[in-house]
Amino acid sequence: MVDEKRFTQHISRQYNEELARILNRVMRMGGLVEQQLADALLALTQGDSVRGERVVASDYEVNAAEVELDEECIYILARRQPAASDLRLIMAVIKTITDLERIGDEAERVASMALHLLDEDRRRSPMAQMQALGRQVRHMLAGALDAFARMDAEKAVQVAEQDIEADRQYEGIMRELINAMMDDVVAVPRAMDIIWSARALERIGDRSRNICEYVVYFVHGKNVRHTSLAQMAKELADDRRK
Amino acid sequence: MVDEKRFTQHISRQYNEELARILNRVMRMGGLVEQQLADALLALTQGDSVRGERVVASDYEVNAAEVELDEECIYILARRQPAASDLRLIMAVIKTITDLERIGDEAERVASMALHLLDEDRRRSPMAQMQALGRQVRHMLAGALDAFARMDAEKAVQVAEQDIEADRQYEGIMRELINAMMDDVVAVPRAMDIIWSARALERIGDRSRNICEYVVYFVHGKNVRHTSLAQMAKELADDRRK
Repeated sequence: MVDEKRFTQHISRQYNEELARILNRVMRMGGLVEQQLADALLALTQGDSVRGERVVASDYEVNAAEVELDEECIYILARRQPAASDLRLIMAVIKTITDLERIGDEAERVASMALHLLDEDRRRSPMAQMQALGRQVRHMLAGALDAFARMDAEKAVQVAEQDIEADRQYEGIMRELINAMMDDVVAVPRAMDIIWSARALERIGDRSRNICEYVVYFVHGKNVRHTSLAQMAKELADDRRK
Repeated sequence: MVDEKRFTQHISRQYNEELARILNRVMRMGGLVEQQLADALLALTQGDSVRGERVVASDYEVNAAEVELDEECIYILARRQPAASDLRLIMAVIKTITDLERIGDEAERVASMALHLLDEDRRRSPMAQMQALGRQVRHMLAGALDAFARMDAEKAVQVAEQDIEADRQYEGIMRELINAMMDDVVAVPRAMDIIWSARALERIGDRSRNICEYVVYFVHGKNVRHTSLAQMAKELADDRRK
């Protein structure tokens, strides 16, 4: 799954294996979180309560993966004293797993709200838009994990750019729900459940973007957090010309 | 500000100074974020627009502090190859600054909402409860930074426990706002601004608790994320008996 060519330049075969194992574990944790998000969205958009409950029940697996990976990173730092790109890789892993764990929490939030909304008439607005936003952030998460697996900075910037579309969709849903609440007070509790779900999805987009920023940091040694996308793309282009 | 006795056991005076400098910088970043939160709360509860705008304008300072501290931590990891408690300290710093930066983002959210609510009648409910929640999370943030400065795990557990009260206050505000929206549709936009502010304050409580968990991790070498508070307190007591 992980492109090991990037990480196998050490004399110690064991060290290579340790790094490859960490990366494969990050990908496995990412796969778990992707499954949680997919299940939460099916619970929300199709009223599938079995999947909704499965998301809530699987939270501990993601938490355990985060704690284990954290410990493996500390072990590598203490034992191997990595430098240069290996050190940046470990830093990227430490930060990525925090975001993955929080994406799992957001998926759990969506699943809990979905369990409130089981009797919902899903033809009603804005469920189609929620489905579209869900698709968008799933796509972003998959793209971020793919960019991470291949440590592909260009792909990472492309995925980060998709957050603009996710934010636009989220704003549209918010406007619609606020209008719905003002038209009909009975709609308020339902609208609030959907608002929290939409917010959770929007945050998953933000955190997928964070992961992309760590990939750019790994590849180019540049911290691009708090940098605009245009600036990020420009710096990558400058690096390529060097 | 930082209790250097805990970090001055190295033969290299320069290394000691590097660690002390990092900790002092974390405290300075924490002080900045505390000021942002205090200003955001004055903007919200007293309609002080000058302070509200100051929070929005000072966001870049907190972001810059995070990037610089991240780089200093990487420098120490690469150059000094810390082990044992020094390594745990650097890990705690790396994680703490991420939470501090996000607390700054939440304070900015509160300030932006406050700028929407300038004409608000602040005698109306739930502004008194918002003030109480604001006081609670300011107290938590100050306590978390204090526990961090002294690396005091018992204090950290005490502060983490306060998150239960913050969550209780937040739930009360939510119930009240949902009822207000159902009583009077005209209240919806105002209520939504207060809802986002309340949510941001609640998240500041969560993130202050995260910082407390990193302190416990530093002192006891135990990862207490995803551990209940009762479990956390029990493990500390067990450690003391050893």
